Amino acid sequence: MMKAHTPAPQLRGPSDHDVRDQIVEAATKYFGRYGYGKTTVSDLAKAIGFSKAYIYKFFDSKQAIGEVICSNRLSTIMATVDEAVTGVPAAPERLRRMFKALVEAGSYLFFHDRKLYDIAATSASESWPSVGAYEEHLKALVLQIVRDGRELGEFERKTPLDETVNAIYLVMRPYINPLLLQHNLDNAADAATQLSSLILRSLAP
Amino acid sequence: MMKAHTPAPQLRGPSDHDVRDQIVEAATKYFGRYGYGKTTVSDLAKAIGFSKAYIYKFFDSKQAIGEVICSNRLSTIMATVDEAVTGVPAAPERLRRMFKALVEAGSYLFFHDRKLYDIAATSASESWPSVGAYEEHLKALVLQIVRDGRELGEFERKTPLDETVNAIYLVMRPYINPLLLQHNLDNAADAATQLSSLILRSLAP
Repeated sequence: MMKAHTPAPQLRGPSDHDVRDQIVEAATKYFGRYGYGKTTVSDLAKAIGFSKAYIYKFFDSKQAIGEVICSNRLSTIMATVDEAVTGVPAAPERLRRMFKALVEAGSYLFFHDRKLYDIAATSASESWPSVGAYEEHLKALVLQIVRDGRELGEFERKTPLDETVNAIYLVMRPYINPLLLQHNLDNAADAATQLSSLILRSLAP
Repeated sequence: MMKAHTPAPQLRGPSDHDVRDQIVEAATKYFGRYGYGKTTVSDLAKAIGFSKAYIYKFFDSKQAIGEVICSNRLSTIMATVDEAVTGVPAAPERLRRMFKALVEAGSYLFFHDRKLYDIAATSASESWPSVGAYEEHLKALVLQIVRDGRELGEFERKTPLDETVNAIYLVMRPYINPLLLQHNLDNAADAATQLSSLILRSLAP
């Protein structure tokens, strides 16, 4: 059986994708309405009309369901961010768009799906694998942009690549991590613009 | 009578500094032990051995007492930060020391006086004047360092001064604001070093 630390969402029982999807879909609606923290698998089972035992055939805990919901939502944000930078040749502009798209997608989730945002915040405070994967994906995107910018001579090459990428990621992190973003929403759009400019000044060849 | 929005701590009644200091001192110990959020002025009065009415002669609310405690604590941090940069001629080194001292003082408060840290976090989430004054003081310090560095030719002068200062402050803010710092403690010392380097690269003439 899988353990709680396994990077993939914990699934077990028959590999019946339809039922699993159905549970995730219903749970997304249910948690989206009543919140994740205070509801139990029993509450969820009652609301869906399944037995608790049946749900446990597919997910070994409430967190396992939360993980899939969180992972789905973060995948949507990643896709939005990837789309925002695709086809943009200049690395500086890609970096600006990445930061902007991130802040917009995160703020949108917060203001339009507050209860699902809370799942993401829980996942960040408890270091669930879904948030780890999200952070890694975004860090890889920063790496790609910096590498491309260096190759094109748009960015300086003196600073070790990993140091540059880490530091840029640290500047963006308060707008990526759901636990931090919720305290940064007041000025997030302006902050993303100003911080992008600062990062780009730091990258000047 | 003073209102809750007044920048100064709300004091009233006879200007008896001794009694006021005595209440603040006792409240610091009391909140430091039992927390600020769940205790009342009645609890505090009982613990000190004063009547509730007597405490209200000096402070018009629990928040007014919390404000003074918070303000005292943030003043200590500001003094530590000011001391860390005093007498350092090079602006880049001053910026590094400022960031380092901030992170150290904030982390120390978190790990050694967790319940007082929580008062600071409350003050940040409710935008009390004490945290506003703290943030303004630190922003003024960044301005001073950037201005000095520009005059000495250590920093570039093309970017508008206020834009530069704002952006640097935004980079530091997750390590200044108590609400954010508590989620950034894992890697705060390393982050301060890396972010200082990034800021200094952005300031290169």
